[in-house]
Amino acid sequence: MDGVVFLNGEFVEASQAKVSVFDRGYLFGDGVYEVLPVIGGKLIDQENFLIRLKNSLAAVGIRWPYSEERYLDILEELMHRNEVEEGGVYTQVTRGVAAREFAYPRIEPCCMAFAFKKALVDNPLAQTGVAVVTVDDIRWKRRDIKSISLIGQCMAKQQSVEAGAYEGWMVEDGYITEGTSSTAYICKDDTIITRPLSRAILPGIRRKSLLKLAEMEGVRIEQRLFTVEEAYQADEAFLSSATTIVLPVISIDGKTIGNGKPGKYAALMRQLYIRMAADESPASRLG
Amino acid sequence: MDGVVFLNGEFVEASQAKVSVFDRGYLFGDGVYEVLPVIGGKLIDQENFLIRLKNSLAAVGIRWPYSEERYLDILEELMHRNEVEEGGVYTQVTRGVAAREFAYPRIEPCCMAFAFKKALVDNPLAQTGVAVVTVDDIRWKRRDIKSISLIGQCMAKQQSVEAGAYEGWMVEDGYITEGTSSTAYICKDDTIITRPLSRAILPGIRRKSLLKLAEMEGVRIEQRLFTVEEAYQADEAFLSSATTIVLPVISIDGKTIGNGKPGKYAALMRQLYIRMAADESPASRLG
Repeated sequence: MDGVVFLNGEFVEASQAKVSVFDRGYLFGDGVYEVLPVIGGKLIDQENFLIRLKNSLAAVGIRWPYSEERYLDILEELMHRNEVEEGGVYTQVTRGVAAREFAYPRIEPCCMAFAFKKALVDNPLAQTGVAVVTVDDIRWKRRDIKSISLIGQCMAKQQSVEAGAYEGWMVEDGYITEGTSSTAYICKDDTIITRPLSRAILPGIRRKSLLKLAEMEGVRIEQRLFTVEEAYQADEAFLSSATTIVLPVISIDGKTIGNGKPGKYAALMRQLYIRMAADESPASRLG
Repeated sequence: MDGVVFLNGEFVEASQAKVSVFDRGYLFGDGVYEVLPVIGGKLIDQENFLIRLKNSLAAVGIRWPYSEERYLDILEELMHRNEVEEGGVYTQVTRGVAAREFAYPRIEPCCMAFAFKKALVDNPLAQTGVAVVTVDDIRWKRRDIKSISLIGQCMAKQQSVEAGAYEGWMVEDGYITEGTSSTAYICKDDTIITRPLSRAILPGIRRKSLLKLAEMEGVRIEQRLFTVEEAYQADEAFLSSATTIVLPVISIDGKTIGNGKPGKYAALMRQLYIRMAADESPASRLG
């Protein structure tokens, strides 16, 4: 870890970015987070980021510590200070520092953010596609809250990586919920299928933007549950997240999807999102 | 927070006890914890503490960073440095500091511990009893792992406190699983009833010791699921945890349990545990 980190109102060297062991983020995973993609030196999908962060904070009763404009300014400054032209900005808000009690104390929240460089547009995985395995969804029942209590996701991702995959698609009651850190899509008969929003999945920001872009493009969308067996039989499959945008899925549990090559809808959705990012002007950041 | 904290091999002032924001405990709730009761200047139930901590660490693939003897020595020193005669010692082990990726990096774990004073034996709540409300169990599916990803428990406890209760008993499929930070028991016809161990609940150390003590005392035990309705109709109810030992439950969801006074089994179990603690010699700490 290098570069500059934003921590409670200050920009500090990453090696000096430290929090109290009594920060409830550390004791309880009591906080929420977000990741914004950076493309062409701009923070992408800012409006949706603010909506989701505020929803997560409200759900766990953490006070929103900054004005929206101020927080975006901070993240933008962080991006510039770290000279990130392409990559991402991560930010988390924890409830704050207090003596350890499960119930919420009335304290000031702690805000932390860091920026990182990553090739989002020229990601070679977009050309090759990735392998996915299915894993049990062992998470809690409020997956619509983007909480930092993520040990279930870490375990699932580790299990997937050990199985030689890039990502794990989590399964509950026979249906795929989502990836450990991404949204899951399959395509059948020229229709993109993805699970409808509920407390069972995170309301993915890329999911939201991609569905809107697909609709504008006249692509058929079905928001419904789909089984592992349906995924095996799909014409193609893909995933989305803040820092992968869209990646084609070419195998699931070792079974080839479609012809085993990245599919046309993955390519289309990826292209549409990147074009949208290029068109987004910083001035229009609040929609 | 005052006193001395143990952090990665050093004893530091609580105000100086800080960890990197890249500690996975802070980013992912990626760690496990334990709480040991301190009674009469001794760490109680040490053997069971070591067993459970090692089980939790193994389940999430974190390397155990100290020998058992060495770790107990550290916690004992921490207890002495903070002059804790009665109260508890909290300790957590997180996976360590690394760039943020969900899968497990190979890094050195971080160990933190603090000690606190609390009246365990002369707790007035043992005389008055406490009120409990039932809340949805929204936690993950590996509740046998004592992970620090605890936002579900924090939400449930907060909900309970806002409802005017001391503790929340979590409910899944109509059955009580356990308290947000304690084990749940009911008594009917001179039998203590508590849920059997599985991935649905934490294997409580007080639960383990109390069941053993009850058996030695000839008290009938049934380890089985019980419903909310059964709890309402119980002769008495109680809870156990590291720093409450045993507390009588005199109401659930505003409904009086038994005659509304602390019950005889709660008093007996509490007395037996405290007597066991008094008998435990530091020399016999490894059983």
